[in-house]
Amino acid sequence: MRVELLCTGDELVTGLITDTNSPWFEARLFELGVKVERVQLVGDVRPDITHALLEAAQRADVVLVSGGLGPTADDFTLECAAAALGVPLVEDARVVEWLQARYRNRSVPLTPSALRMARVPQGAEVVRNPAGSAPMVVLRLGRCRLFFVPGVPREYRALAEGEVLPRIRALLEAEPGRVYRAFRLLRTVGIPESQLDARVAPLSPLHPQVVFGFRTHAPENHVKLMASASSQAAADAALAAAEAACRELLGNSLFGVDDEAYPQALARLLTEAGATLATAESCSGGLIAQQLTEVPGASAFFIGGVVSYSEKMKMAWAGVPSEVLARHTAVSRQTAEAMAEGIRASCGTTYGLSVTGYAGPTGGTAEDPVGTVYCALAQEGHPTRCERFSLSGDRERVRLFAASSALELLRQALLTGGAAS
Amino acid sequence: MRVELLCTGDELVTGLITDTNSPWFEARLFELGVKVERVQLVGDVRPDITHALLEAAQRADVVLVSGGLGPTADDFTLECAAAALGVPLVEDARVVEWLQARYRNRSVPLTPSALRMARVPQGAEVVRNPAGSAPMVVLRLGRCRLFFVPGVPREYRALAEGEVLPRIRALLEAEPGRVYRAFRLLRTVGIPESQLDARVAPLSPLHPQVVFGFRTHAPENHVKLMASASSQAAADAALAAAEAACRELLGNSLFGVDDEAYPQALARLLTEAGATLATAESCSGGLIAQQLTEVPGASAFFIGGVVSYSEKMKMAWAGVPSEVLARHTAVSRQTAEAMAEGIRASCGTTYGLSVTGYAGPTGGTAEDPVGTVYCALAQEGHPTRCERFSLSGDRERVRLFAASSALELLRQALLTGGAAS
Repeated sequence: MRVELLCTGDELVTGLITDTNSPWFEARLFELGVKVERVQLVGDVRPDITHALLEAAQRADVVLVSGGLGPTADDFTLECAAAALGVPLVEDARVVEWLQARYRNRSVPLTPSALRMARVPQGAEVVRNPAGSAPMVVLRLGRCRLFFVPGVPREYRALAEGEVLPRIRALLEAEPGRVYRAFRLLRTVGIPESQLDARVAPLSPLHPQVVFGFRTHAPENHVKLMASASSQAAADAALAAAEAACRELLGNSLFGVDDEAYPQALARLLTEAGATLATAESCSGGLIAQQLTEVPGASAFFIGGVVSYSEKMKMAWAGVPSEVLARHTAVSRQTAEAMAEGIRASCGTTYGLSVTGYAGPTGGTAEDPVGTVYCALAQEGHPTRCERFSLSGDRERVRLFAASSALELLRQALLTGGAAS
Repeated sequence: MRVELLCTGDELVTGLITDTNSPWFEARLFELGVKVERVQLVGDVRPDITHALLEAAQRADVVLVSGGLGPTADDFTLECAAAALGVPLVEDARVVEWLQARYRNRSVPLTPSALRMARVPQGAEVVRNPAGSAPMVVLRLGRCRLFFVPGVPREYRALAEGEVLPRIRALLEAEPGRVYRAFRLLRTVGIPESQLDARVAPLSPLHPQVVFGFRTHAPENHVKLMASASSQAAADAALAAAEAACRELLGNSLFGVDDEAYPQALARLLTEAGATLATAESCSGGLIAQQLTEVPGASAFFIGGVVSYSEKMKMAWAGVPSEVLARHTAVSRQTAEAMAEGIRASCGTTYGLSVTGYAGPTGGTAEDPVGTVYCALAQEGHPTRCERFSLSGDRERVRLFAASSALELLRQALLTGGAAS
C-alpha cells in the first residue's frame, strides 16, 4: 500500500513550527509494515495545495491530509479538495448539528465563520472529531482514499489513531499478497559510520529479506534492520537471523536495541553488577553526570560527581596532588588517573571515572593539541586504566565525545568482567 | 523566488527522526523574505527520489536537497541526481583530496566506501564541507539550481549557512521589485508563552510594518520581529521602533537577542561584574555546570561544581550539616541554602548557586511533591536568597526548568546590582 502525508499551513514552511504529527503517524504505520512514501509540507497557497493533492492522489492509495480545516480565512484545504475533485462545497447537516452541540456545551455562540467548518466537498463522508470542532472528511479520488484531519496535534492524533489507522488496517487485511514487516534498531558507539557500514555491508547479500540501513546520531551510530516477508513469522525469523549476524560482528560496540538509550543501558549494567560510581569531570563540564542522572533512580548507583574546572578544585575534590599538576599539567595521563582514583576514594564507590582535556577552541600544547582528552577509570583492587583520545571537531563535539569515551571505558569494563568485587 | 526543500532518508518517513533541519532553514530564508513553497520528505527509494527531484526542479528556482550523500550503501541521492540529469557519476579529484586530508588528520583509513563520497554527477560544482566528509554539490537543471548537502544537522547547518544562503542572497539581490526585510529574535525566560503573547500582542497594530511571532524553546520563549519595507533603511527603522517597545514590556525577562544563547548572556554578565561562581546541584544533575562550560573560556568565572547525588556528598562537598539533612531532608529550603553557602565557601567564589528537588517520576512528600525544587544563591556579605518552585511535567522537563530557575536567580541578581563587591 502506498501512503503519503500532506500537511498544509504557512507555519510549517516558515520555520514557526516543526511538524511532529508526521513522524508520529509514520511510526504508527511502520508498525503495520507500511513505510510512508512521501511527506509534503505546503504553505497556505490554494493552487499549491490543489496540485499537491492531485499529484499525491495519482501516486498513492491513501493520502492523509492535515491542516486548514478550521474556521479562519486561511483554512481552505477543503476548497482545494473540491476543486481537485471538480465538485462544489456543500453544507453538511450532520456537521452543523455537531457544531451546534459542541458550541452550546461550551456556551460559545456559533458564528458564521465557525459554520464554514460544515462546508465539505459534495459526496464526502464526514466523521465526528472527538477532540475538536472540525470534522474528519473522507474522499475518493480515482483509486485513492483521501483522509482530511485537523493539524492541531491533539485532534490529529485522536482522529488518526481512532479513525484513519483502523481503516488502513482493514485495507491492508484485504490486500492480496500482503507484505509483513519486522524492524530492529541496533545502537552502537565507538565505531565510525563508514567502518560500521564496511563491517556490516557484507551481511546484506546473505539476508535478502532484510534491508540494512545506517543512521548517525553523534556520538552513536545505529544499524537499522527491516525484514519483509509474506507472513509475520517469516519476517520475524528473517529479522532474528540478521540481528544475530550483526550482533556477532558488532560485539560490545552494541549497547542497546530499539528505544534503549545509552544512559539506560549503562545504568542497567551498573545495577546488575551492584556497582556504584563517582565522576570527576574537567573538559566534559558535567555532561557525564547529566547523562547518568537522566535515568530515574540514578541515585542507586551514582553517588556524586564533580566538575573541577580549576586546579584548586581538582586538588580539593579529586585529591590530585599539587606535584602531579605542577609536573604534568591538568591535562595529562597522571592527572586523569589521580582524578579517577581520588574521586573513587572520597566517594567510597566501586568505580571512579574521570575526564580531562582541551575542548577548545583555544588551549592545548604541541604534544597535546585541542581535542586531546584523557579518560581514566579507577576500581578498588584493580590497576587504574587510562586512555588518550584525539578528538576532532568544535568545542561541542569534543565535549560530547569526551563524555562518551569516558562512559565507554566504564561500560567495556563492566562487560568484560570488571564488575564489583 | 520559488524555493523547495527535499529531504531524503528512510528515517524521515518511518518516524525514526523528526526533520528539524527544514524548520531551521525555513526560518533563515524567511528572514530574507522568502517563504519556502514546499518541503518534501522521501524515503530511500531511487525512483521516488529521482521523480521528486525532477518535479521540484520544474516548479522551483532553488531546491535544497539533503541526505544520502554519505559513504554507506543507502546513500544514493547523487546517483538519483545523475539519473535526473542524464549524466554519469564521475570521481572528482578535488573531493578525493579533501577526503584524503580529512581521513589522514583523523588517522582513519580511507576505505573504498568512503571514496564513494567523491563520486558526483558530471559537471557538478563541489564545495568543501567544513564540518564533515561529504562535500556540498551544486547542479543546474533547466533554470533551477539544486544544492545537495548532508542531512546530519551540524553539516547541514554549516553548509546551508555558509554556502547556500549567501548564494540565495545574491540571487535575490539581482531580482527586480525586491522587498527589504529586517529581523530580530528577542529571547526571554521566565514568562509563559501565553502571557508573552498577551503582553506583546497590543503592540502589533502600532507597528504595521512589523510581523510579530512567537516561538517556544523550553525553558525559553522567543518573540520574533520581522519588518518589511521598500528600502533596507526603512525596514531597519521599523524594526528598531518595534524592538524598543518590546524591550520596555519585557524588561529583565529579555536575556539576549538573535544568536545570543543563555549561557553566553550569563557569562557576559559574570565577566562584566568580575564575579566567579561555584555550583552545587542535586536534581539538575550537572545541567547547570554543563551549560556554563559550553561557553569557551568558562574557567575564567566558573571555578567548579558538584553533583551531590547522595546525602554523604552533600555534606562532604557542599558542607551541608548532617543536622540540617536530618531535620529538614535533602529537599528543603535549609539544605538548598546550606549547599549554596557551603559550595561558595569551599571554592572561594563570589557566588554559590544550588538546586535540590524532586525530579520524579517517584519521590516527593505531601508538602513537597514531585516537581518541587529549591534554588539558592549565596554571596559574600549578602543574605542568601532561596526560592521554591513547583514545576510541572516529566523528569526531563523538571530538570530543565530547575536548572533554568537557578540560573535565573543568579542572572537577576547580577542585573539588579548584586555584583561583586
